[in-house]
Amino acid sequence: MQDFINIGKRIPKMDAEDKVTGKAVYIQDLKVPGMLWGKILYSPHPHARILNMDTSAAERLPGVKAVLTGYNTPLIKFGFYKDNMPLKANKVCSYRDEVAAVAATDPDIAEEALGLIRVEYEILPAIFDPEDAMKEGALLIHEEHLGGKEKKPTNILNLPWRLVAGDVDEARKNSAHVAEDRFKLTWVNHCCMGTSGCVARFDLRNNLTIYSNTQIPALAQRDYTEALAAMGLEGKKARVIKTTIGGAFGSKLDTYAYEYIAILLAYKTRKPVKIIFTREEEFFATSPRQPAVIDIAQGCTKDGTFTFRDVRMVLDNGAYTSWGATTPSVMMMPISSLYKVPNVRYVAKCVYTNNTYSQAFRGYGNPQATFAIESQIDALAEMAGIDPLDFRMRNANTPGEVTPQHFNITTCGLRECIDVVAQKLDWRQNRGKRDGRGIGMASMIHVGGGARVYKSDGCGTIIKIDDFGTVNVITGATDMGQGADTVIAQIVAEELGVRVEDVIVTHTDTDICPWDVGAHASRTTFVAGNSARGASKKVKEQLLEVASRSLGENPENLDIRDRTIFSKLDPEKKSPLGKILRASHYTAGGRMVMAEHFYDPPNENLDREFKGNLSVTYAYGTHGVEVEVDKETGQVKILKYVAAHDVGRAINPMLLEGQVYGGAAMGIGYALTEQLILKNGKVINPDFRDYKILTAADVPNIEAVVIETDDPSGPFGAKGIGEPGLVPTAPAIANAIYDAVGVRIKELPITPEKVLAALKEKTK
Amino acid sequence: MQDFINIGKRIPKMDAEDKVTGKAVYIQDLKVPGMLWGKILYSPHPHARILNMDTSAAERLPGVKAVLTGYNTPLIKFGFYKDNMPLKANKVCSYRDEVAAVAATDPDIAEEALGLIRVEYEILPAIFDPEDAMKEGALLIHEEHLGGKEKKPTNILNLPWRLVAGDVDEARKNSAHVAEDRFKLTWVNHCCMGTSGCVARFDLRNNLTIYSNTQIPALAQRDYTEALAAMGLEGKKARVIKTTIGGAFGSKLDTYAYEYIAILLAYKTRKPVKIIFTREEEFFATSPRQPAVIDIAQGCTKDGTFTFRDVRMVLDNGAYTSWGATTPSVMMMPISSLYKVPNVRYVAKCVYTNNTYSQAFRGYGNPQATFAIESQIDALAEMAGIDPLDFRMRNANTPGEVTPQHFNITTCGLRECIDVVAQKLDWRQNRGKRDGRGIGMASMIHVGGGARVYKSDGCGTIIKIDDFGTVNVITGATDMGQGADTVIAQIVAEELGVRVEDVIVTHTDTDICPWDVGAHASRTTFVAGNSARGASKKVKEQLLEVASRSLGENPENLDIRDRTIFSKLDPEKKSPLGKILRASHYTAGGRMVMAEHFYDPPNENLDREFKGNLSVTYAYGTHGVEVEVDKETGQVKILKYVAAHDVGRAINPMLLEGQVYGGAAMGIGYALTEQLILKNGKVINPDFRDYKILTAADVPNIEAVVIETDDPSGPFGAKGIGEPGLVPTAPAIANAIYDAVGVRIKELPITPEKVLAALKEKTK
Repeated sequence: MQDFINIGKRIPKMDAEDKVTGKAVYIQDLKVPGMLWGKILYSPHPHARILNMDTSAAERLPGVKAVLTGYNTPLIKFGFYKDNMPLKANKVCSYRDEVAAVAATDPDIAEEALGLIRVEYEILPAIFDPEDAMKEGALLIHEEHLGGKEKKPTNILNLPWRLVAGDVDEARKNSAHVAEDRFKLTWVNHCCMGTSGCVARFDLRNNLTIYSNTQIPALAQRDYTEALAAMGLEGKKARVIKTTIGGAFGSKLDTYAYEYIAILLAYKTRKPVKIIFTREEEFFATSPRQPAVIDIAQGCTKDGTFTFRDVRMVLDNGAYTSWGATTPSVMMMPISSLYKVPNVRYVAKCVYTNNTYSQAFRGYGNPQATFAIESQIDALAEMAGIDPLDFRMRNANTPGEVTPQHFNITTCGLRECIDVVAQKLDWRQNRGKRDGRGIGMASMIHVGGGARVYKSDGCGTIIKIDDFGTVNVITGATDMGQGADTVIAQIVAEELGVRVEDVIVTHTDTDICPWDVGAHASRTTFVAGNSARGASKKVKEQLLEVASRSLGENPENLDIRDRTIFSKLDPEKKSPLGKILRASHYTAGGRMVMAEHFYDPPNENLDREFKGNLSVTYAYGTHGVEVEVDKETGQVKILKYVAAHDVGRAINPMLLEGQVYGGAAMGIGYALTEQLILKNGKVINPDFRDYKILTAADVPNIEAVVIETDDPSGPFGAKGIGEPGLVPTAPAIANAIYDAVGVRIKELPITPEKVLAALKEKTK
Repeated sequence: MQDFINIGKRIPKMDAEDKVTGKAVYIQDLKVPGMLWGKILYSPHPHARILNMDTSAAERLPGVKAVLTGYNTPLIKFGFYKDNMPLKANKVCSYRDEVAAVAATDPDIAEEALGLIRVEYEILPAIFDPEDAMKEGALLIHEEHLGGKEKKPTNILNLPWRLVAGDVDEARKNSAHVAEDRFKLTWVNHCCMGTSGCVARFDLRNNLTIYSNTQIPALAQRDYTEALAAMGLEGKKARVIKTTIGGAFGSKLDTYAYEYIAILLAYKTRKPVKIIFTREEEFFATSPRQPAVIDIAQGCTKDGTFTFRDVRMVLDNGAYTSWGATTPSVMMMPISSLYKVPNVRYVAKCVYTNNTYSQAFRGYGNPQATFAIESQIDALAEMAGIDPLDFRMRNANTPGEVTPQHFNITTCGLRECIDVVAQKLDWRQNRGKRDGRGIGMASMIHVGGGARVYKSDGCGTIIKIDDFGTVNVITGATDMGQGADTVIAQIVAEELGVRVEDVIVTHTDTDICPWDVGAHASRTTFVAGNSARGASKKVKEQLLEVASRSLGENPENLDIRDRTIFSKLDPEKKSPLGKILRASHYTAGGRMVMAEHFYDPPNENLDREFKGNLSVTYAYGTHGVEVEVDKETGQVKILKYVAAHDVGRAINPMLLEGQVYGGAAMGIGYALTEQLILKNGKVINPDFRDYKILTAADVPNIEAVVIETDDPSGPFGAKGIGEPGLVPTAPAIANAIYDAVGVRIKELPITPEKVLAALKEKTK
C-alpha cells in the first residue's frame, strides 16, 4: 500500500460552500446585460399536420422582440440521426414538438405572446406502441425515412444492433435449464434540480457565445458550429461557457431544440436570449430513460454453469433520435460480459413512435439490461436448485478473462463484492424463508476506464504553476456536481507533492479548456484523472530538473512532498517549492513551469460486429438488499441496503460514497416509485407531486463497501464509479421481493399495486 | 522582403466593434450580485497629525455596512518602498492621504457617510519644494525614514541614482563649446478615459478575486497575496481578472490604496465591494508624471562632435514612493545613449515632499530627460555655429555601437529618421528665418526589445487548436487599448498559416493566463509577440509532424498557408488544416495540438553601476515640427508634424500609427497645454475644464513615417512602439518655437504666457 498524502482522503467538494450558501452561479442565476427571455410553444397534438400559423398578434405585443417558427428560420438539423429540427414545419410528431418561439423583454410577456400564436392543425392518427409501430403497414412517423435492405419507408431505425458470440441455438439445446422471460421498462426522468437552460449571444462579428449547463462542451461546440453554418454563418465560432451544473445524469449529453432556438432568437434580435425550462418543461420536453421490451432467455448446465444468454429488445425511440438511441451499444456490455457466458446473442430494434424521445441516463441502458439479466438469474438458479449466491459465484468474472465481446478484464473484484454482500446480509441464515422479509442481490459490470463510443475518448489538461506554488489546472473535464474538480485536484496534488488547496481547477470555457468528449460513461476520474496526472508528471519533471541545479542532486533522486523538494538520498538537501519556482523564473532565460497533456485511453471502438475492448478497465459491483413486503398493501420497505463496488482505488472515499448513495437512491426510485407516465404520448405527471422521486426521508440507509483492486491503468489505481451505483439496484430489490413473498415483478416500477396483483395471481 | 500574409496588414483592433458599440465591459460597467460601493475619505490637509476620529455617525447611517480607518484595519505596507498604507493612522502627509473608507449599499449613501466622519487634526507645517526638502534641518515627512551613509533622518530617498562613464570633468575642460541649462518639468496626469477602479470579493475559503483594470496582473497578484498575508490570511490565493481597460499609460502599473481598501472592505463585509474613482479623484488621487529639476551641461568639439553630457536632477517624490520613483533608471537611457556621447555623468535624487506622489507615465522619465537633452542640443549647435540637423547627423547612433551604458545597438534607424524628417520639413529651405514660423526637430531612443527592470522580463503563452482550426491563444500580455491582442493574433496567424479571424486571444485572468511582467516599457509586441511566436512554432511543429504521416512527406518539406498544409516540393500534396487536426485527434492514441512557451528576452538587469544591456534592441525616432508663434498672444500653432520611427517591422501599420498619433498628441499636450497644478500640495484643476488635454479639434495632422530595420530579435522583426511617440515631441516643439521667435522656453508646458514673457524679456 502506497503512502498517499492526498489520495484516499475524505475531502469535501471544492465548491461545496459556494453551493450551500447560494454563491454558485447556475444558469438560472445568470443575467447578461440587455438579455431577452425566450419561450417555446409546443404542439397540442402527438401527430398533426400544420395547416396555418398566425403569429401577428404575438408580434404586436409590446415587449416582444421576435417570433420564430419553422417557416421563418433556416433549417438546422440536429441529433444523432439528424432527424430533428429546432422548430417544426409541416408536421408535428409528438407533444413536445416545438412549433414557435418568442423572445421578449420579460418572461411573462414571452409567455403571454405564446398564447397569441394561432396554429391550425390537421390531426393525424398516432402510434405509441413500438411493437405496433414495427408492423407492416403501420402509419409512418417520418414518411421520408427509409430503412432495411430494401430501403422502404419504415418506423424501424437503421441501427441494426446485433452482437453474436458462440452458437446460442446449439448451446440452448444442450442446456439443462433454460429460463425465458419478458421484462418491460418504462420512462423515467433525470429530475435534475437545475432545469435545462442556456443564454445565447452573438458578438458583432457574429461569433456565438452560449452559456449552458451542458455535459459535453466540446461536442456541443461542434454542434453549434454546424448550426451556425446552417444559418449561413459558415466559419463563425461557437464558444461554450458552462455555468454551475445542477445535475445532469445524461440529460445534458446532447444538444436540444431549445438551445438552437435560443441561438436563432439571439441572432434574430441581436440580443442575448435566455431560455430556462420550467419544471413542467423539464418533465415533458427533456428526454427520459429509454423504455424497452426485453425478451431474454438464459441457460445453464445441471451444476449451474451458464451456457448461453439470448436477448431481443424493442426500444421505443420516440419521434426523434438522440444519443439515447445508442443505448444498445452499452446494453451489450452486461449481456455479453456480466458473468462468464460462453454463447451470447443480442438483437435490438429502435422504433419511431409518437412518444417523447429518449436520451442517455446514468448507466445508459445498463440498468434496463441488468434488470432483466439479474432478475432472471434468480429464476434460473431456482430451476437448477442452486442458491443464487452460489450460482453467481460459480459464474463470476475473474481477472485475465476476455469476454465474448472482446473485453479484456484486467482487475476484477466481482467475487469480493458478491462475498461481502452475502456476509453483510447474512445470506445463508436469512435467505429462503419467504416470510414477508427477504433478501436479494444483483451484480453489475460497467465501463471503468473510459468508453470509446466516439472516435476520441480523450481529455486534455493544461497546468501552470505560479511563483508561489499555486497550481492552475485547466481541464477539459466537466464537473456537473459529482466532484470531478476535487478529484482532479487531489490527483494533481498527489503527483506534485502539494496540498489540495494549492490546486485551482478551471473547467468552464471552450476558449480556455482543452478538448474532452464529455462527462459520460463514468469516465471523468479515469480519463481526466489520467490526463491531469500526465500533465502533472511533465510539470514535476520540469520542477525536479530546475531543483536539481539549485540542490546539486540528480533529478531522479529528488521528490516533492508537502510543497518541499527534497533529495531521497540526503534529506538535508531540500528547498520549498515556491523558492525553486522563483529561482527558475527570476533569472536570465527564466522559465515558468507549465505543461499540457492530452490523454486518450488505449481502448477500442467497437467493430462492425460490436466487439472490441471498449474500456481500458471495467467496474464491477454487487448490491444486496433486505426488504419487508406488506402483503396487505403491497408496500415494499427496504430494511437494509449494501452496495459493494470494485472502484480500483477510492481517490476520495467521501465523494465516491456520494456517487454510490446517489446511484442507489436513484435506482431505488427506478425500482419502486418513479415513472414518467405517458397517456397517448402525453406526459400526465409533469411535477414532483405526481412523479415520485425519493425524498431524503424515503432513502434507506445505504452501506457502501469499497473494494480496491488498484487498477494499473487508472490514475493511482482508480476506476469510474459515476454510474455503477444505479445499475444493479432494481434487480436486487426484485430478487429480495421474490425471496420475501414469492412473486416476480418484471415491469418497473414495482408499485404496491403490481405486488398486490401478483400476490393475488399467485394465490389464485 | 518576405511575403507576409498577416504581418504588415492594417487590421482593425479585434475589440473595436465591442468598444464603439458599448458592448465592452469596463470596470465601470461591471456589476456583481450583492455588490457594495466603497468610497474614500481623503485628508483636508497636506500634513497633519490625526488626533481623534469619530466614525459612529457614519456607521449608524442606514445602508452603511462598514467604516474602516487606519485604526481598525491590519497594517498593509505597499508601494516600491513599502512606505505607503491603505488607510493612514497617526499622520497624513498629503492631500490624497486616505484616512477612512466606507462600504454601503449605494454610492450616494457611501458618499453621505464620508461626510459624517469627524476627524480632528493637528495641522503641521508642510514642504512642497524638493530642493527645500533636501536642505539640512528641513521638516521631515517620514520621521522614521533614515538615509545616507550616516543613516540619519532625511527626506532624501535611499535611491542613489548615479551613472558614470568616461571622465566628464576632463572632457568638459577639453570641449570647444559647453552649454549649461536648468530645465523644469511639472506634473501631468494620464487622463485615462476609464478612471481607476476595482471590485474585490472573497469566496468562502477567503480566497480573493479582484476585477481590475490593472496593467500588471501578475505583479498585482503578488502584491495582493502579500496583503492577504498581512491581513492574517497567509497562504490564501489572489486571482486578478482584468476588465476592458480604458487607457492606462503607466497609471495602472502599480497597486494603490483604493485597491487594498476595496479588499479590506470586502473582507470586513463579506460582500463584493466596488470602488470607482470619480474624475476628480482620478486627477488628485492617482499618481501623475514625476516633476524634475534638471541641471544639464553638454559639450562638443569645434566641429560639433559630442564630448560629454552631465546631468543632475532633483525629483519630487511626493509623500510616498511608487514605481515612479525609479524613472531615473530610464532617464539614464537617453542621457547615456541618445547620440554618441563618450563621457557621461548622471546623478539624481528623489526627495519626499507633501505633494502627491508620482508614477510611471508613458516614456517613464524619458520625455523629461529628452526635453532637456534635445532642447539643449539646438543651443549647443548654435554656439558651435552648426546647423542642428548636421549636429544630430554627426553624432547619430549607428548599428553595432555599444553605448556608455553598455547598450548593444543592433539595428538603428536614427539617421534615416533624422533624414526623412529634414526632407519632410524642407529643412535647409525653411530653417533659421525667425519670422514667426519655425521648424525644429528632436530625436529619441527607447527600449524596443523589453526592459529588464524586474528580475524577469518574460511572458508566457499557451496555444490550443480545436478540431476546426480555431486557435485559442492564452497570453500573459495585457491589452489596455493598444491592440496587443490583435498584434498577437497576427503573429500567431502568420506563423501558423491561418487567418487572423481564426485566432482568439484571451488575456484576462491570472488563473488562466501565464505570467507576464506587465504592459510597460513598450515591451508587449516584442516580448509577448516572441512568446506567442514561440508557442506557435511548437504548435506548427506538431501540426507538420501529424500532417507528414497523412501526406507522406517529411515535415521539413511541409508548410501551412491559408489554413492548408502543403508540400513545398509537390503542391499537389496538401490537406486542409482542420482535416489534419481531426485526423490527429480522432484516432487511437489521438492527440490535440497544444503547446506552451515562456519567452524571457536575453536582456540584462542593470548592474550596480547601472550598466547593462537593458533591452534586446532599441527603438529610435525623430520628430519634426513646424510652428507659427503669434508674437502678440504667445500662442503656438503647429502647422506640420512629422514623426519618424524605427519600428523594426510594422506588424499592423494602422495600430502602430495609432500609437504614434496618440503619443504625439499626448506629447503636444505635455509641451503646450497640460499641467496638473498643485498649490501648496493641493490639486486645483482636477477637471477637464481646467486641465487642458488636446481635444480632437486641437490635434494637428500628424504624419507618421515608418522606418523598418527588421530587427533580428523581434517577432517578424518588430520593436516596441508604445511609448516612443511621446518622447521627442516637447523638445521638437520647443526647438521650432526658438527657430520661429528666438526664445527658449525651459519649463513645460510652453504656455502663451511663458512665450510672451520670454519675448518681452528678449526685447528688453
